[in-house]
Amino acid sequence: MLTTDIKHKLISIVGQENYEDNKASRLVYSYDATPNFQSLPDAVLSPRNTNEISAIVKVCNEYKIPIVPRGSGTNLCAGTCPTEGGIVLLFKHMNKIIEIDEENLTVTVQPGIITLNMIQEVEAKGLFYPPDPSSMKISTIGGNINENSGGLRGLKYGVTRDYVMGLEAVLANGDVIRTGGKLAKDVAGYDFTRLFVGSEGTLGVITEATLKLIPLPETKKTMLALYQDIDAAARSVSKIIANRIIPATLEFLDQPTLKVVEAHAQIGLPTDVQAVLLIEQDGPPEVVERDMFRMAEICKQEQAISVQVAKSEEEAEALRTARRNALSALARLKPTTILEDATVPRSEIARMVKAINEIAEKYDLTICTFGHAGDGNLHPTCPTDVRNHEEMERVEKAFEEIFIRAIELGGTITGEHGVGVMKAPYLELKLGAQGIAAMQAVKSALDPNNIMNPGKVFAKESRKRVVVTQ
Amino acid sequence: MLTTDIKHKLISIVGQENYEDNKASRLVYSYDATPNFQSLPDAVLSPRNTNEISAIVKVCNEYKIPIVPRGSGTNLCAGTCPTEGGIVLLFKHMNKIIEIDEENLTVTVQPGIITLNMIQEVEAKGLFYPPDPSSMKISTIGGNINENSGGLRGLKYGVTRDYVMGLEAVLANGDVIRTGGKLAKDVAGYDFTRLFVGSEGTLGVITEATLKLIPLPETKKTMLALYQDIDAAARSVSKIIANRIIPATLEFLDQPTLKVVEAHAQIGLPTDVQAVLLIEQDGPPEVVERDMFRMAEICKQEQAISVQVAKSEEEAEALRTARRNALSALARLKPTTILEDATVPRSEIARMVKAINEIAEKYDLTICTFGHAGDGNLHPTCPTDVRNHEEMERVEKAFEEIFIRAIELGGTITGEHGVGVMKAPYLELKLGAQGIAAMQAVKSALDPNNIMNPGKVFAKESRKRVVVTQ
Repeated sequence: MLTTDIKHKLISIVGQENYEDNKASRLVYSYDATPNFQSLPDAVLSPRNTNEISAIVKVCNEYKIPIVPRGSGTNLCAGTCPTEGGIVLLFKHMNKIIEIDEENLTVTVQPGIITLNMIQEVEAKGLFYPPDPSSMKISTIGGNINENSGGLRGLKYGVTRDYVMGLEAVLANGDVIRTGGKLAKDVAGYDFTRLFVGSEGTLGVITEATLKLIPLPETKKTMLALYQDIDAAARSVSKIIANRIIPATLEFLDQPTLKVVEAHAQIGLPTDVQAVLLIEQDGPPEVVERDMFRMAEICKQEQAISVQVAKSEEEAEALRTARRNALSALARLKPTTILEDATVPRSEIARMVKAINEIAEKYDLTICTFGHAGDGNLHPTCPTDVRNHEEMERVEKAFEEIFIRAIELGGTITGEHGVGVMKAPYLELKLGAQGIAAMQAVKSALDPNNIMNPGKVFAKESRKRVVVTQ
Repeated sequence: MLTTDIKHKLISIVGQENYEDNKASRLVYSYDATPNFQSLPDAVLSPRNTNEISAIVKVCNEYKIPIVPRGSGTNLCAGTCPTEGGIVLLFKHMNKIIEIDEENLTVTVQPGIITLNMIQEVEAKGLFYPPDPSSMKISTIGGNINENSGGLRGLKYGVTRDYVMGLEAVLANGDVIRTGGKLAKDVAGYDFTRLFVGSEGTLGVITEATLKLIPLPETKKTMLALYQDIDAAARSVSKIIANRIIPATLEFLDQPTLKVVEAHAQIGLPTDVQAVLLIEQDGPPEVVERDMFRMAEICKQEQAISVQVAKSEEEAEALRTARRNALSALARLKPTTILEDATVPRSEIARMVKAINEIAEKYDLTICTFGHAGDGNLHPTCPTDVRNHEEMERVEKAFEEIFIRAIELGGTITGEHGVGVMKAPYLELKLGAQGIAAMQAVKSALDPNNIMNPGKVFAKESRKRVVVTQ
């Protein structure tokens, strides 16, 4: 708990109205979208500007109080769960677009802005911010940057990291630094911009970001390819890219996912096939037309039983929305939904899907798989119930095997969800003890008192998800 | 100097034939392409593999011997000058393409491979590695990664950083770490891949890299727009991009540069105009055709006196080659050529060119300016003579003013050349004392004995170029 003295210091910075420590507020911010993690913060602060954040951080650094910056808490790795108490920082007062620069094609924003709101503002000017995490209706840019969020357009356009050109951040000692700028090229010093992207709030608090925009593609087309053979769908993915076509979106949904998504969205998705690919291309009309034709041909050659182009933008949007809502749909099945994001080189998609199905069978679990096939970024999802400890043990073992198999295939334990608390015990699988030691050296150098989102990324012990529930 | 004991330890690692400490070898590697910096190393080693590098690093860490990894030494910031002696590491035995993966669109290479050689190999397979520093005929991928090299295609395609997907690196303690992989998405831990890109050998030795490839554009077209008004050329750059066209190349050459380049290349470049823009677009034929037409229209609206499309690929290649050789051409004018790379947001190009010309006049210097206008990345270049101390003082003051002006315009002291020794005294202009302190914390954490390319990036004192000559 915070002492009265510290509480008064913090209130003197943000004002009484931006300091909350009643039980209700602390409960609201005790968890995020990750199942099975909860821990009460000591207080919830809503600073109004960078100077206030710097002042808060200085107090926290002096008294060794944990700080957890939080956007909308949609992350799936318990990255914003205040596992060690301390202060949750909210950005509800720092949610503005500072500038859209049409000459330099940049947008400068405060971290608290909702991603979709920003996207709509820039698209109104004919510009395009491609990263589109499924959570973008509610997630914030600050959260996206801290988690290096991906999305459906990653294959062609990259992820959040590829669009962050400059940052303002508050370090653990209260220093405010600025990195990068509206610069296509800048090699003045270490790339702290990208070091901070995806660092999950463990190195500092991001207070402003300048993001790269590109011209909005002229047109977009959407199609569905249906398969009775999962392998054939995976082969189509590889063959499209080996044919030098990079579609904007190349999503995979297996039958169990399709059934749930259709029950939720009711837009006429086929539920009698083993898998579908949702394929989109954008760009100049001639190019989109040609690429769609060539991709349809490839899917047919690879035994797609049907290839249907969406007849209207409304139909296309319904398909995209259904896909984006896959997690919400799956969450209706059982009290607990464990969704993972093991990722492999795209050439290994077929092997990975096969491995997931074998592992599900071995542990007698239902695992639905969907995800960004073009990125090799799959979301095996297990509807379960945390109260069933016996089943949760099997879930934990199954996902550990899935991570190990992903690494064996040249992959990673997390493609876009982050490490947080949840995947910290598995990080060594990917980076080795030496890689983690190097990261720890950087963390300790920038945050010697370990106040910046402590307990995240680095595993304190080898406890895993199943143990947390006990 | 190295003791006999240390020398024997190093020879036992790399073999007698890969250890050189005769005066001639030490002289050859005492300087790089940067004028006016020279310092003898104690020995030059050519390891054959990562294990040998790890063993060398362990010896160096034990005895606090500086290590300077060196590709072809084409950098322009004295980044590979062994200013504190020690060991120069050469990569002549580590220069292979390990794999071109056509399914995942990656190439995995050893650091010593010449960039152009790798580009030719991947293009033979219909794939494309866009970063094209002007030095690419002789520079190595390892050097490009350490300096985060740019090039003529940066505007549309980004720089080296944007194509590095994974690294193997040897840390100062001898640990070998692997980052990233053939993964479109990977958020497992801090982004050490990008932290190492552009770190100029100060954080570790890069021993292998996996690079992203994209499909080779189907076609490319090249044109020259001629101007009697530099401002009009700069306005054309801004207007092209504000019209949502992102060309592959958008290069600027002023009249003094044009004259020198034409005298060198003799390809019929106009020398009676104030400035030219070299503009290229690549992609599907319809798109290239349309963009070239629209860009030509914009240039004419902005008072270009002539817009000429290259009639053949030979003519286009001659134009590109002439541009790439601008530095070599300028180097023929005077004994010493000081070339800088102050960079601004592209909206500020006109103001920056104007400032450079005013500063040249103020200090009574010839400064030729060319560069990547679309990136805001200019190369003001001063033909001079280091033996003329009085003039060098003026050169130094002029460039300091250029850096300050670039920063005032929201720019940076270096767009693509790196900080090295040469720009270390100016780094604080861009990052502030707090930004440099944060970088220093990371450097000390990963390299506590400061053996990795010491004296680079971080200024020991405020001495600048002119003082070095005395």
